[in-house]
Amino acid sequence: MTLEPNMKRVLVAARANADAFAAQFRIALPDHEIITAVPDDGLPIPYAVVGRPLPGLLASLPGLELVLSLNAGVEHLIASGEVPAGVPIVRMVDPGLVDGMVEWVAAQVLAWHRNLLVYRRKQDSKSWEPAAEKLAHERIVTVLGAGALGGPVAAMLATIGFTVRAWSRTPRDVAGVTTFAGRETLAEAVTGADVLVSLLPA
Amino acid sequence: MTLEPNMKRVLVAARANADAFAAQFRIALPDHEIITAVPDDGLPIPYAVVGRPLPGLLASLPGLELVLSLNAGVEHLIASGEVPAGVPIVRMVDPGLVDGMVEWVAAQVLAWHRNLLVYRRKQDSKSWEPAAEKLAHERIVTVLGAGALGGPVAAMLATIGFTVRAWSRTPRDVAGVTTFAGRETLAEAVTGADVLVSLLPA
Repeated sequence: MTLEPNMKRVLVAARANADAFAAQFRIALPDHEIITAVPDDGLPIPYAVVGRPLPGLLASLPGLELVLSLNAGVEHLIASGEVPAGVPIVRMVDPGLVDGMVEWVAAQVLAWHRNLLVYRRKQDSKSWEPAAEKLAHERIVTVLGAGALGGPVAAMLATIGFTVRAWSRTPRDVAGVTTFAGRETLAEAVTGADVLVSLLPA
Repeated sequence: MTLEPNMKRVLVAARANADAFAAQFRIALPDHEIITAVPDDGLPIPYAVVGRPLPGLLASLPGLELVLSLNAGVEHLIASGEVPAGVPIVRMVDPGLVDGMVEWVAAQVLAWHRNLLVYRRKQDSKSWEPAAEKLAHERIVTVLGAGALGGPVAAMLATIGFTVRAWSRTPRDVAGVTTFAGRETLAEAVTGADVLVSLLPA
C-alpha cells in the first residue's frame, strides 16, 4: 500500500482483538492508514494504539507523536521508558471497560459470598452439607482505589448490599460507601475486611 | 413442663435452624410456650411455624388456629390439604429472605455471564483459552414471576446492567425492567432470552 500524502498512520497493536479494533478505527478515521503490524518502509507511525505492548515495540516506532492506551491504567507504559518525553499518553476510560470491570468484580465477590465454587467442589465429591450463609451486609468488602474503575466497582458492591469501604490516596466520595484517604488510614480501611479488591495502579 | 393457664403453645417446626428460630420466638413471645417437637399430652397447639413440614405434621396438631410460613411461597401448604378450612396461613416476606434470594440469583447469573465455572474447569484441565465475553446489557434475562421475590430480583439484575424482562400473571411495574403480563405474552417474554429465572409459585 502506498501512503497517500497527508495520510497519517495509526498502528493498532492490541494483543487481543487487534483486527476488530482496526476495523473500528478504519470507520472512525477513514482518512488515516490503519495498520496492525509495523512495515519495514521506515515511514512515520505517529499514532500507536496499545494495551500491553511487547517490549521494544513503542521504542521502534518512527516519528511517534501520541500513544492511546486501551487500558485505564498507563503506569506500565510510563515505566517502560519507551515513550519519548513530550509524547502524550492518552488513557481510555471507555464505559464498556468500566462496566466489564464492575461486572467481573461483582461476579467474583458474589460467587465467593454465596459459596458457588465451594458447592461445585461439594457436588463433585457428592457432599451435600450446606456451607455457612450470610447476607451481603454482613460482609465487609474493602476496595483499594476509588478512581475511574474502583469508584464504580465499590458503588455496585454497595448497591448489591455489601458493607463497602473504599480507600484511595486522595479523598473521593462514592455513593453508599465509607471512604478513606491517605496512607495513614489504610490499616483502618482494611481491618476486619472479608474481601479486598485492588484497583490500584499496577 | 406444665402449661400455664392462658399460655399458648407455638410449635416451631422449621427443618433447618429450628432451635435458632425457637430462641428468637422465646424472646419475642415470652408469655407463650415455644416448642420444637409435638408432645404427646394432647394439649392444644394453636400456632405452627413451618417451612416445608413433614407430611402429616400439620394434620396432627390439636386445636390449630394459625400457620406461619417461613417461606414466601405457601402453595405447598395449601396443596397439602392439612390446614383446616378457616385456619389462616401467614406468609413471611422477611427483608432478609428477599435479600438472600436477590443475592443468590445475582451470583448465579453473574457467574454464568462471566464464565466463572467454565474458567474453573479450564483451570483444572490446564487450558487457558479465553471464553467469549460480552457485557451484561448484551444478555437478556427473563424473570418469571414479578412479585415479592421476582420483582426485587429483576430490579437488581437490571441495576447490574443486564437487559431484563419480567413476566407475571397480572401487570406489575419493575424499575428498569420490561414487563409482560398474562399467558398470551409469555412466548414474547421468553423469546431470545439467554437466561430464564423462575420465581413462580411452585
